[in-house]
Amino acid sequence: MRIRLPLLLVLSLLIGRPCPAQDQPPVDDWKPASSNQPGKDYPQVNSEGRVKFRIVAPQAKSVGCSFRDSSEFTQGDDGAWYGTTRPLDEGFHYYTIQIDGAEVPDPNSLMFFGAMRWGSGVEIPARDQEFYALRNVPHGQLREVFFHSKSTDAMRRAFVYTPPGYDQNPDRRYPVLYLQHGWGENEYGWGAQGRAAWIMDNLIAENRSRPFLIVMTYGMTNDIRFGGLRNFDIGPFETVLVRELIPYVDAHFRTLSDQPNRAMAGLSMGGMETRMITLRNLDTFSHIGLFSGGSISMEDVNQTDGFKEKVRLVFVSYGSRELDGGRSRRGDPQADMAALKEAGIPGHFYVSPDTAHEWQSWRRSLREFAPLLFKN
Amino acid sequence: MRIRLPLLLVLSLLIGRPCPAQDQPPVDDWKPASSNQPGKDYPQVNSEGRVKFRIVAPQAKSVGCSFRDSSEFTQGDDGAWYGTTRPLDEGFHYYTIQIDGAEVPDPNSLMFFGAMRWGSGVEIPARDQEFYALRNVPHGQLREVFFHSKSTDAMRRAFVYTPPGYDQNPDRRYPVLYLQHGWGENEYGWGAQGRAAWIMDNLIAENRSRPFLIVMTYGMTNDIRFGGLRNFDIGPFETVLVRELIPYVDAHFRTLSDQPNRAMAGLSMGGMETRMITLRNLDTFSHIGLFSGGSISMEDVNQTDGFKEKVRLVFVSYGSRELDGGRSRRGDPQADMAALKEAGIPGHFYVSPDTAHEWQSWRRSLREFAPLLFKN
Repeated sequence: MRIRLPLLLVLSLLIGRPCPAQDQPPVDDWKPASSNQPGKDYPQVNSEGRVKFRIVAPQAKSVGCSFRDSSEFTQGDDGAWYGTTRPLDEGFHYYTIQIDGAEVPDPNSLMFFGAMRWGSGVEIPARDQEFYALRNVPHGQLREVFFHSKSTDAMRRAFVYTPPGYDQNPDRRYPVLYLQHGWGENEYGWGAQGRAAWIMDNLIAENRSRPFLIVMTYGMTNDIRFGGLRNFDIGPFETVLVRELIPYVDAHFRTLSDQPNRAMAGLSMGGMETRMITLRNLDTFSHIGLFSGGSISMEDVNQTDGFKEKVRLVFVSYGSRELDGGRSRRGDPQADMAALKEAGIPGHFYVSPDTAHEWQSWRRSLREFAPLLFKN
Repeated sequence: MRIRLPLLLVLSLLIGRPCPAQDQPPVDDWKPASSNQPGKDYPQVNSEGRVKFRIVAPQAKSVGCSFRDSSEFTQGDDGAWYGTTRPLDEGFHYYTIQIDGAEVPDPNSLMFFGAMRWGSGVEIPARDQEFYALRNVPHGQLREVFFHSKSTDAMRRAFVYTPPGYDQNPDRRYPVLYLQHGWGENEYGWGAQGRAAWIMDNLIAENRSRPFLIVMTYGMTNDIRFGGLRNFDIGPFETVLVRELIPYVDAHFRTLSDQPNRAMAGLSMGGMETRMITLRNLDTFSHIGLFSGGSISMEDVNQTDGFKEKVRLVFVSYGSRELDGGRSRRGDPQADMAALKEAGIPGHFYVSPDTAHEWQSWRRSLREFAPLLFKN
């Protein structure tokens, strides 16, 4: 739900994060962001979730950043430009730096692909950040593979997460989750800012998830990069995924290749793709995850042959700030999941607290989704 | 050798690349660089090896790039800034864009790690570029792995290239090459701008190399990032590599773990590291590759116990523009290799034509080195 101001104030007080007045100076407990390039002291984050930038641009007339409501950037005694953001939600955010009208990456930040570009991102420490941290537990591998796609006449990249122990158990076969990024992102997203591998390593170390493979590839096959979603056609990507990538993965990895052991999930546009592709291919997929990417209603169920028999999980999630009175822009996903359950279909609804249409919602969605998968 | 001007002119004419006069306009056959971000039309390269940049910076007073002898950047009719470089050597080059004194990545370029930062790079098409191209041949995998390092009390990243067929032949074991980046680079370098995986896939497809594993990790363990090479101490990295990473790789991959099946190579500082570590660990390594990173003389051989019995290959290479009359700054590597051969030690010397201390020299060095490895 879109929480209204008085409630937000109350909640802020309850969780120990005072809602800062805009005219108070930021709390002076800055630390370098974990998303910085090695050895870089800026950007910094403070306990309010603000970000402070330092940009060396000696002859610039104006410097800024893409976070709305940021302070004006001013030159410090060292000649560099400094500016701070409003308190941001916990988790990961894309941004750009503006120098005299140029939109450029912050040279101090690691680079992430979003909004159709490799550019900057910043991590705001989260109360629950341990679940996606790099910990000293057994680690799986994130593997870059290339497969030939006849339909697009190209070599295509995919990343495959193999869980800890995959190489040490040559007789064991594993279920597979096909996991999609959102619009303007690519196949690197879940492995980099999504932290999918570390989330799974940690869940598996805690015995909270079955080990399974995760396959991530580029989902904007029909080049809607600059046309937007109105030109979207699921056909080309469905062909690459179902007719080319799945056979490649089943041939090159030790998968359990039957329908009960194959899931698909995606965030935002990737959720939309998941919904379209799974509903048209229920002999291929049994588990469905839509992260900030729509819902499945009883109307969908009734219009889809064999849904009740074939589908073993429908998982729908949103960030709390995406919902207004429990409703997304397209309906009431919680009511949808309740109706599915009533009809005997395993529907599951999750809301990520205090997050919007951003990666923290999707990291948490994966954490909640993975333990529900492949409980055959 | 550093070729003098008349010879350079002759060579340029022979290979069909006229040496352009600085006062002639660039040849107008510009094409988007292969190193651009998806969908970006700039930077462009022409048949002379020049690069043309387009930078949107409407309010900037001055824009430039880090390539010396570039044209002045001027604003075009569309308000964007345009500038061109001199003809550059074939292959890959790092660069930065300057906007009113700020050094930033070009927002149009893919991002590469060099000079201690994630930033821009550009590919100049090369006559021999097919050997490092993504082709429709069987592909190995580039795997991101994490291993715990006691000596540095950290989880550390490595990339492991497994050759085509590795997963399909669970009873086969493979030799291993440990391959290092240069100063200011990191463990991503050989996989990204080095194209190590595609070079190997192509060599193996042509039956020109035995399939083997390649392991790449960060080599600046004692944090000489900002102190420079004068603070270099090989000890910490030697410990991570020899006592921690090698046992991890031998435990987690199907390696041939005896000395005859283990090689080490590196470029520039990575060559210096290779030289120091292999000479101190000849019971661990049998094959040595130094790419633009020093040489091994008969004096070294005579000072190292068991060298003649244990070393099966010494490969030394340079870019032609790094040499002056065949000599590097530290001596005469060709004479060193000839002396080794005379003494019955397999020494091999390679010069990459028309390249300097850059990745094209090192891609070619890997192409020449790999077929010589593990010919047991």
